[in-house]
Amino acid sequence: MTETHQPDRAAVIDLLGVLAYGELSAFDRIAHDARMAPTTALRAALAEKAALEIGHYRKLIDRIADLGADPQQAMAPFVMPVETFHARTEPKTWGEALVKAYVGDGLAADFYREIANYVDEPTRSLVDEALADSGNAEFAIREVGVLLVQDPTAASRLSLWGRRLVGEAISQAQHVAAERDALVRLIVGGAGDLTAISALIDRITGKHVERMRVLGLSS
Amino acid sequence: MTETHQPDRAAVIDLLGVLAYGELSAFDRIAHDARMAPTTALRAALAEKAALEIGHYRKLIDRIADLGADPQQAMAPFVMPVETFHARTEPKTWGEALVKAYVGDGLAADFYREIANYVDEPTRSLVDEALADSGNAEFAIREVGVLLVQDPTAASRLSLWGRRLVGEAISQAQHVAAERDALVRLIVGGAGDLTAISALIDRITGKHVERMRVLGLSS
Repeated sequence: MTETHQPDRAAVIDLLGVLAYGELSAFDRIAHDARMAPTTALRAALAEKAALEIGHYRKLIDRIADLGADPQQAMAPFVMPVETFHARTEPKTWGEALVKAYVGDGLAADFYREIANYVDEPTRSLVDEALADSGNAEFAIREVGVLLVQDPTAASRLSLWGRRLVGEAISQAQHVAAERDALVRLIVGGAGDLTAISALIDRITGKHVERMRVLGLSS
Repeated sequence: MTETHQPDRAAVIDLLGVLAYGELSAFDRIAHDARMAPTTALRAALAEKAALEIGHYRKLIDRIADLGADPQQAMAPFVMPVETFHARTEPKTWGEALVKAYVGDGLAADFYREIANYVDEPTRSLVDEALADSGNAEFAIREVGVLLVQDPTAASRLSLWGRRLVGEAISQAQHVAAERDALVRLIVGGAGDLTAISALIDRITGKHVERMRVLGLSS
């Protein structure tokens, strides 16, 4: 492998590493948050979502190993930012757990899909596949709807919660960007220029606003 | 449906109900215990085991619904004994978590397989399928082995822990037996007589002793 290819490979490993640890961590957090569910059926629904995440995790670390990298080392730089994000956005209510599982997951998925446009085809397909059933929209939309009917005042609290999720996600993404040059070069190089990066952020923001709107929340 | 068939159906629903809630609860507990893993790879391995349990849960409650019963109602009588079992056997160390995930799971699986011999064919196949990948023997044997090499004194503590798991399981099974007549009739009727029940208990005990021995522990 020549020197000029090295940054690309490092960036791909970074992308797969952050995504893999994100999935493992999502499993852990969603499994934990499922305990707040008001019924056994809803608890099981969230548990099934957690189980999907661990399936994605397996595919991602297998790909890291196929690329000749060590999955544990690939994930290591992202453990702290991901865990910090979760520690700062620990849901206190079932509504917060639902919004986090849906909005947080959707935001992360949109971001990863954008980056995946800049990597090789097998990696892109794998990322798309890992994210395919993310969002779990119908379940969250229905159950947040139930909560808002029961208590319309919850809308402003959950809207605020959605903004907090975005704020903490941006904060941790900035930490990662400061540390992972290869990943930043991949995004900047892939997008082409700052106007394109600005457009990328606009697309992700637009999807987030739409996701909140569908939940009956403001962003 | 005639009166004489009623106990059978109630017993089958009970069997599927306790098994389904057991799987949902196992998901929850194993997902939680995975946090104690000393490495990300081991944490993921236990998370993958938890994910298997939730897949079994889904098949079991679908079968309950197919039989015309309400899955939530079918599980309800078993929530308290299952949760009590887990509350009284909460692992405090990674070793305890490993032994519980393997020995506890194996013990329950052996018991359910015995009962499944007394029910209709589609239910028996489903129960066998739900239990097929239980045990996860190689993973637990290897990792308990690692722990015992690092700290040989752990063997006596983990052996004691294994006995406590069995004691609490028997205690909760007795509570269930006192409440669920149909299930008891199924087992007594299926086994035929007290000698056969005694043989059933001997078989389950024998498998437990063997499982502990393979782990390098006494029972």
